[in-house]
Amino acid sequence: MKMLINVPETVVADALRGMAAAHPELAVDVENRVIVRRDAPVAGKVALVSGGGSGHEPLHGGFVGPGMLSAACPGEVFTSPVPDQMVRAAAAVDSGAGVLFIVKNYTGDVLNFDMAAELAEDEGIQVAKVLVDDDVAVSDSLYTAGRRGTGATLFVEKIAGAAAEEGRPLEQVESLARKVNENSRSFGVALDACTTPAKGSPTFDLPAGELELGVGIHGEPGRERRAMMTSREIADFAVDAVVDDLDPRNPVLVLVNGMGATPLLELYGFNAEVQRRLAERGVPVARVLVGNYVTSLDMAGASVTLCQIDEELLRLYDAPVRTPGLRWGV
Amino acid sequence: MKMLINVPETVVADALRGMAAAHPELAVDVENRVIVRRDAPVAGKVALVSGGGSGHEPLHGGFVGPGMLSAACPGEVFTSPVPDQMVRAAAAVDSGAGVLFIVKNYTGDVLNFDMAAELAEDEGIQVAKVLVDDDVAVSDSLYTAGRRGTGATLFVEKIAGAAAEEGRPLEQVESLARKVNENSRSFGVALDACTTPAKGSPTFDLPAGELELGVGIHGEPGRERRAMMTSREIADFAVDAVVDDLDPRNPVLVLVNGMGATPLLELYGFNAEVQRRLAERGVPVARVLVGNYVTSLDMAGASVTLCQIDEELLRLYDAPVRTPGLRWGV
Repeated sequence: MKMLINVPETVVADALRGMAAAHPELAVDVENRVIVRRDAPVAGKVALVSGGGSGHEPLHGGFVGPGMLSAACPGEVFTSPVPDQMVRAAAAVDSGAGVLFIVKNYTGDVLNFDMAAELAEDEGIQVAKVLVDDDVAVSDSLYTAGRRGTGATLFVEKIAGAAAEEGRPLEQVESLARKVNENSRSFGVALDACTTPAKGSPTFDLPAGELELGVGIHGEPGRERRAMMTSREIADFAVDAVVDDLDPRNPVLVLVNGMGATPLLELYGFNAEVQRRLAERGVPVARVLVGNYVTSLDMAGASVTLCQIDEELLRLYDAPVRTPGLRWGV
Repeated sequence: MKMLINVPETVVADALRGMAAAHPELAVDVENRVIVRRDAPVAGKVALVSGGGSGHEPLHGGFVGPGMLSAACPGEVFTSPVPDQMVRAAAAVDSGAGVLFIVKNYTGDVLNFDMAAELAEDEGIQVAKVLVDDDVAVSDSLYTAGRRGTGATLFVEKIAGAAAEEGRPLEQVESLARKVNENSRSFGVALDACTTPAKGSPTFDLPAGELELGVGIHGEPGRERRAMMTSREIADFAVDAVVDDLDPRNPVLVLVNGMGATPLLELYGFNAEVQRRLAERGVPVARVLVGNYVTSLDMAGASVTLCQIDEELLRLYDAPVRTPGLRWGV
């Protein structure tokens, strides 16, 4: 497997140097692996810190900026960041108004953010945590007890980020983040596996004529393998899995997310089928986002995330955001 | 080769339906294959129309919006749009101030935009044309006499788009577009070939341990094949190819562009090496853009584009833009 890298050992550090060069509006600490809004701490504002294994870009580092995250901690590829990174990030962005840790539900991330929360509190930083567990594909998985955290992370970070930007107190930001997660569900499919730099060969084996329904963002097994399906059939399966679980009564935000290697041309075509199926299921759609946001290196495939909203959540979703990966209204 | 599609014949129409659903701010004519700014024609404003084969998304449809293109005409995958589309687009966006056709240098595109210009002028629309031919890899190529048009298209559309938004007359917008092209050079590499829906197998054959230096955005052959190189070595080769040809004396805009399937993690790491090499070559850098902007379906690889700027070009590059694929300052 050919990669545009030097050696596997420096992939994350190299990427952070490249981010620093491309985004002068971010303060990138390459050595300690922390990406921070350059204007942090912002007086009186609750800070949002997230992180996780690298390989899902633009998540999380690409979501740092006004209206979204205050800081992100990238781990090695598909490996949790360590508590030291998280504490350092929290200390760098805390204005005294407290810090919300946004944690995708993977065992390593959960343990390390728990430990970081204790350490940060020892340093006098008030910390709240929200767990993202939106993936309806499987109830337990490799690396995860309970549901995996996937595409809903974008909605949690966006909406909680907007609430923090408005100066809302920590308990309100936390409660909104929790509400977004509770109102979100995702389902992903893989057409081809991804390859980590360290391994150098596909993380799982997917035969030529098959796809994986319900795949995780590290290539974890899903619900089942089937002979290759059309975009229309895949959209039916994914939308039904999400809608059956969420049973939305209110309008939804829709994220049609590429896993990495699927061309935008295909992703837009898939969105057409997702929208058709949502209409057939009677789900009203408020906003649609199509693109590569929560990726899995060079995996081919896509995921669908729905987030049921009310007037307040929609207003916060629409609020200005200025990050490398998501930007509008400013 | 597995794809997230229904059938190859409907890929472009499906994608346009998906774009329409995701971007209510665009008017997408699926039947006639024209994507138009919803507020067009804008009184007194020169209109910009571009287009080309599909498969390079977000180029061009994703660059339609305030501050960039007025309309785009997508052809079939890797196939020129037809003159009818271009004339229809021109008629939809012309306010009487004239239309600039931005044409990447491929034989089919050039012929069809030439014919469309004549037809549009017969309808009383004033048309100017600018040819983009920035790729230094080869002097002639498959589908092209002279240099191929690649990454510089983004800079031409962005800067000319900003000039048009300011209300500059057609001859000035045209002259600025020409200047951007003359001051831009690109060089691309492929690690793996792309696969078109119609063919269903890779468009060219690249052995496991080799890369293609100087590849075109349709997989056209480049300068040479070599045994796989590191990110550092590839950056040296690509930057040197561009800098040797452009010989920049002023600061440059840098586009580090992904071909489609290369993870953003790798692309940022590649950017670190590109910036190192530019510094070694003494080239001052004004702005850096990293991402998938001028893609080649699911090709793995990247390209480097430099655009030498002056104060006016930088101001126009920095001006607000609001499109699906590029957005800042608004």
